[in-house]
Amino acid sequence: MNKTVAFIGLGNMGGGMAANLVKAGFKVNAFDLMETNLKAAADAGCTPVDCAKTAVQGVDFVVSMLPNGAIVESVYIDGDALLDVIPKAALILDCSTVAPANSRRVGAEAEKRGLSFVDAPVSGGVAAAAAGTLAFMVGGTEANFERAKPVLDAMGANVFRAGDVGAGQVAKICNNMLLAIHMTGTAEALQLGMDNGLDPKVLSDIMLKSSGCNWSLEKYNPVPGVMDGVPASNDYQPGFMVDLMLKDLSLAMEASVGSKSSIPMGTAARNLFNLHKNSGGEDKGLKDFSSIQQLYSKP
Amino acid sequence: MNKTVAFIGLGNMGGGMAANLVKAGFKVNAFDLMETNLKAAADAGCTPVDCAKTAVQGVDFVVSMLPNGAIVESVYIDGDALLDVIPKAALILDCSTVAPANSRRVGAEAEKRGLSFVDAPVSGGVAAAAAGTLAFMVGGTEANFERAKPVLDAMGANVFRAGDVGAGQVAKICNNMLLAIHMTGTAEALQLGMDNGLDPKVLSDIMLKSSGCNWSLEKYNPVPGVMDGVPASNDYQPGFMVDLMLKDLSLAMEASVGSKSSIPMGTAARNLFNLHKNSGGEDKGLKDFSSIQQLYSKP
Amino acid sequence: MNKTVAFIGLGNMGGGMAANLVKAGFKVNAFDLMETNLKAAADAGCTPVDCAKTAVQGVDFVVSMLPNGAIVESVYIDGDALLDVIPKAALILDCSTVAPANSRRVGAEAEKRGLSFVDAPVSGGVAAAAAGTLAFMVGGTEANFERAKPVLDAMGANVFRAGDVGAGQVAKICNNMLLAIHMTGTAEALQLGMDNGLDPKVLSDIMLKSSGCNWSLEKYNPVPGVMDGVPASNDYQPGFMVDLMLKDLSLAMEASVGSKSSIPMGTAARNLFNLHKNSGGEDKGLKDFSSIQQLYSKP
Amino acid sequence: MNKTVAFIGLGNMGGGMAANLVKAGFKVNAFDLMETNLKAAADAGCTPVDCAKTAVQGVDFVVSMLPNGAIVESVYIDGDALLDVIPKAALILDCSTVAPANSRRVGAEAEKRGLSFVDAPVSGGVAAAAAGTLAFMVGGTEANFERAKPVLDAMGANVFRAGDVGAGQVAKICNNMLLAIHMTGTAEALQLGMDNGLDPKVLSDIMLKSSGCNWSLEKYNPVPGVMDGVPASNDYQPGFMVDLMLKDLSLAMEASVGSKSSIPMGTAARNLFNLHKNSGGEDKGLKDFSSIQQLYSKP
Repeated sequence: MNKTVAFIGLGNMGGGMAANLVKAGFKVNAFDLMETNLKAAADAGCTPVDCAKTAVQGVDFVVSMLPNGAIVESVYIDGDALLDVIPKAALILDCSTVAPANSRRVGAEAEKRGLSFVDAPVSGGVAAAAAGTLAFMVGGTEANFERAKPVLDAMGANVFRAGDVGAGQVAKICNNMLLAIHMTGTAEALQLGMDNGLDPKVLSDIMLKSSGCNWSLEKYNPVPGVMDGVPASNDYQPGFMVDLMLKDLSLAMEASVGSKSSIPMGTAARNLFNLHKNSGGEDKGLKDFSSIQQLYSKP
Repeated sequence: MNKTVAFIGLGNMGGGMAANLVKAGFKVNAFDLMETNLKAAADAGCTPVDCAKTAVQGVDFVVSMLPNGAIVESVYIDGDALLDVIPKAALILDCSTVAPANSRRVGAEAEKRGLSFVDAPVSGGVAAAAAGTLAFMVGGTEANFERAKPVLDAMGANVFRAGDVGAGQVAKICNNMLLAIHMTGTAEALQLGMDNGLDPKVLSDIMLKSSGCNWSLEKYNPVPGVMDGVPASNDYQPGFMVDLMLKDLSLAMEASVGSKSSIPMGTAARNLFNLHKNSGGEDKGLKDFSSIQQLYSKP
Repeated sequence: MNKTVAFIGLGNMGGGMAANLVKAGFKVNAFDLMETNLKAAADAGCTPVDCAKTAVQGVDFVVSMLPNGAIVESVYIDGDALLDVIPKAALILDCSTVAPANSRRVGAEAEKRGLSFVDAPVSGGVAAAAAGTLAFMVGGTEANFERAKPVLDAMGANVFRAGDVGAGQVAKICNNMLLAIHMTGTAEALQLGMDNGLDPKVLSDIMLKSSGCNWSLEKYNPVPGVMDGVPASNDYQPGFMVDLMLKDLSLAMEASVGSKSSIPMGTAARNLFNLHKNSGGEDKGLKDFSSIQQLYSKP
Repeated sequence: MNKTVAFIGLGNMGGGMAANLVKAGFKVNAFDLMETNLKAAADAGCTPVDCAKTAVQGVDFVVSMLPNGAIVESVYIDGDALLDVIPKAALILDCSTVAPANSRRVGAEAEKRGLSFVDAPVSGGVAAAAAGTLAFMVGGTEANFERAKPVLDAMGANVFRAGDVGAGQVAKICNNMLLAIHMTGTAEALQLGMDNGLDPKVLSDIMLKSSGCNWSLEKYNPVPGVMDGVPASNDYQPGFMVDLMLKDLSLAMEASVGSKSSIPMGTAARNLFNLHKNSGGEDKGLKDFSSIQQLYSKP
C-alpha cells in the first residue's frame, strides 16, 4: 500500500518536491497558506488541504519546506504546534534551511513527544527541485536516516547523512560558505587575469586543469560568454539568488558566533555579496549569485 | 640529430627538469653557481659547464629556472647579459616564477636583439619536476609556443598557452591565488563543521559531491587523517611550502596594484598565510601550505 | 526623601555601580544569585535581598546589569517575570550589553504593562564602574532619558541619549566595532613600522599628531613599553578582555545580518580577535584586547 | 645672506611649497617640465629655470616634489642624474611620496658621491601646501634633520624625524594606512548605526566622546551633512582623492611584501577603496576619499 506524506510549504522549491513524491507513488496531502500554491499542487496530483493540522492526520511522513527558522519553530511548536498532532509512528523531515539550533530545538521537542525527526536541507535550486535532482544533507539517527531515505530519494539524486539532528544544517552551511568563497575567488582571479590581458576562456581552461579548479569554475563560470547555459550567459538570471546566498552566509556567521570559530574568508565573501546587493541602483539580490563578477569589473 | 639545450639554474626544481630533458634525448649544457648541483647534473647525463656564457654557445634552446625576477633580469640583461651571446636561432624558455613585468622586459630586450622568448612558469613541485609531470603556463607567440612545446613536453604533462609574453606568469598568479583562496576556505569550512560537531571525513565526502567541491578538497585535504598520502597526514611536510605560496600571493598583490584590480579574497588569504607563518614560535613558512588548517584550530 | 533603586546583577561591573548609587544617596535593594556578591553589596551599604521579586517592591528605579540577552529576557519576562511585579511608577534601566532586539522586546513588554524602560549599556570597564566614570549610551524616550539621568550620573561621567529603546545598544555596538577596527589597525600600522625599522614610540608620536590619530593610539597604545599605565605595559592584564570585545563584535555581526549592512572591516577585526583568542596554546580571551598586537608580531 | 633652494617639481603641491619658501626669504630656482607651472612659480617670486641641471648649480638646498619613485630615481640617478651635478655642500630633501626602497637607493647613491639626503614626504593636501601647514615625516641622520628643519618649517607646521633615510616614507605609509582603516571603519560604523535607526549626527557625537574616537570622525566626518566644511558636505570634492589614498595603500602593500608583515586590515581597506573607485559608472578615484561612505550606503 502506498505511503502517505503531509507536505507543508509549497513554494518554488516545495511545489516541485511534492510533485516528485506523487510521481514516485506517494499519496501527498499538500498544505500551503497560498491558494495558488494549493491549486498547483492539486494539478500535480497532490490532495490539497487547507489546514496543516488536518494535513498531518494519519500520515507516515511529514515533509516541510519553509522560509526560515522562526516559521519552522512556529509551525511545529509555538504556533500550529503540529508536534502535538502528528502521529507517533510518523517520521518528520524538515527540508528548510535554518540554523542548527532551530533544528535541534524542534528535534528535542519531537523526541519529548515520542516523535522521530530529521533535518534534511537541500542543495540545488528550483530546477533541481522540479527535476528531482536535489542533494539532501541529513541530520538524524542512523535508523531515522534509513527511514527517510526512500522519501528523499524520490526528490533528489544524492542523499548524505551528516550526523545527528542539526548536522544536516551544519553541513549545508559549511558547503555553501565554501561555495561562496570559491565563487568569489573565481570571479576575482578571472578579473585579475582579464585586467592583465588574458582571455577569460583561455584562463578558465588552464585553471580547470590546474590546482585552481573548483565547482564554480567547472559548472558555473561567472564571466558572461565563457560557458553556455549558465546564469552568467543569461544576464545572471537565477539559478541561485544573491539573497539566498546571503541567507546561508548569515547562518554561517551566526554558527561561527556560537562555536567561536574564525571565518575570515566566509565573512569577507558575505560582505562582498552584501556590497554587491546594495550596489548600482537596483536590487542585485534577485540576480544569480555568480553576478558577483560585476562587483569586480571596471566601468 | 639531437637538439641542444642550455639549462641555467639546477636547484631542486631545475635539476629534475634538466634530467628529464636528457632522458628525452636532448643534449643538455648545465650551468649553476653551486658545485654540488653541477655534479648532480653530470650524474644525470648533462654536460656541466662552469660559465653561463659558455653554456649557451651554439644551443637550440635556453631553459632557465631561477629564484626571482631580479636574478632573471640580471642573468639575461644586466649581469651575465646572456641575451648578448645567445645564438639568434635559439628559443629562450624562462620557467622561473616572476612578475609579468620581469618577463615582459626580458622578452622585449630579446626581441630587440632578434631573439625569441617565452615565459613558461610551472605548476607542481619537486616531485613533479623529477617525475616529468609538471604543468607549464606559457606566454609567447603561437609560433614560439609550438617551438617550445617539445621541450616542455619532455618535462611536463600539461602545457598551456595563456597568451603573449608575460601571460604565462599572469595565468600562474591567477591560478595560485585561486588555489590559496579555496585551500584557506576549505580549511575554514572544515573547522567550522568540526567546531559544530561534524566529522571532517564525513563533511569532506559530502562537499566533494556538492557545490563546495574544489581541488584542495579533492586532492589535498588539509585535515590530518582524512586523506592518505597528503601532507596533512604527514605532519605537513611539503609538498608546496607556505613560503612559496606567500611568494606567489605577493606577485598577485603586485599585479593587482599595477592593474588596479580588487583582490579582497586574495589579500585576505595572503594575510592568513602570513599570520600563520609568524605564529607559534617556529617558522611555519617551511611547512606545507595546507598547514593553514592549524591557524584555524583551537588550543 | 531618598529614592529607592532595585539593583539586579552584582558582578564585577554591577557591584561597583550599586556602590556608587549608595554613595550618591540612593537607597539600594541589591539582588544577585551569588552569596559573595550579596555580601559585598551589603558591605558597600546596599540592602541585600535574596529574591528579585522582593527587591523591586516599592522602588522608584530598577537597574539591571546582566551577562546576556537571554538572561535579561528571562529576568524581566520569561523567568522571574519582574515586569509583572515592578511598580507602574518605576523606571527600568537595563545597563546590560545585549542585542537591540532583546532591548526592544523587553521595552515593548514593559510598555504593554504600563511600565517605562530604557536600555543604557555602558562603555568603560571594571575600574570605571568602581570610580563612577562609566559612559552610558541610552535608548528611550526623551522623558524617560531625563528621568534616568540622575541615576546614571551617579554611576558615570558621560550620559548620552542615542534614540528610542534599543538605540543605546546600537550605539554601543557601533562604537565598540569602530574601537576594534582602529585598535587592530593601530597594532597593524605599528608592526609594519617596526618591521621596516621604525621605533614604535617615535612612530606613535608622529601618528598622534597626524591623520592616523585615534583613541587606541592616544589612550591605549598596544605595543609594550610605549606608554605607561596601559595593559600593554603590564603583560596585557585587562582592562577590557578579548572575550568581551568578541562578545560586542558578535552583536555587531548579528545586527549587520538583521539590517543587511556590510561590515567588512568589522568582521575582519572580529576574526583577527578570534584567531588571536585561539592562538598560542593558552586562552588569550582573558587578556586585554590590545594584546592583538601579539598576533601581528614575529617569532 | 639668503640661502638658495633648487625646487624640482612645481605641481599642485610643489607650486605652493615653493611659494612659501620665497615668502620665508629663500631664493628659489624653480624647475618643472610644464611651462604654465614655471610661469606660476615666477609669479610667486621664484626664478624659473628651464633645465634641472642648471637649477641646482650653486644652491644650498635641493627640494623635489615628484609623482612617483621611478621619476625620483630618474631625476637624481638614471636620467637627469642630478646627483652628479649638485654641489657637495648642498642638502637634498625629497618630499615625494615613494617606496622606502626608492628613498634608500637615492640616499645611498647620494652618499657615494659625498652628498647629503633626507626623504621628507608630506601629510596634508593642496590647501595645506598653499597655507604652509603641511606635516613632514623625515628620514635622515640627526644632523641632516637639523639642517633640513628651517627649510621644512618654511613650508609646514609640523616636522617629525622618523629615523634614518627611508624612515620618513615608512612613517607616512603607516600613518596613511591607519587613516584608511579608521576612515573606512568610521563609514562602516556610521552606516550600521543608520541602518539600525540612529541619527548619524547623534551617533557621531557619542563616539567622539567615547572609545571609537578617531581623526576621521573628529575632522572629516564622511556622512553628508553631519559636519560643515568637509568634503562629505560638498559632494565629496577633494580634499584627498581616492586615487591618492590608493597610491599610498599600494605602497603599504609593497612594503608589507618586503618586510613579510601581515596587514589584513590595510589590504581590506585598500580593496574597499578599489571597489569603490570602480563602482557606479564614473571614476570615483577623483572624489575625496571620505566618499567611501557611498560604497556602504543602500540604494
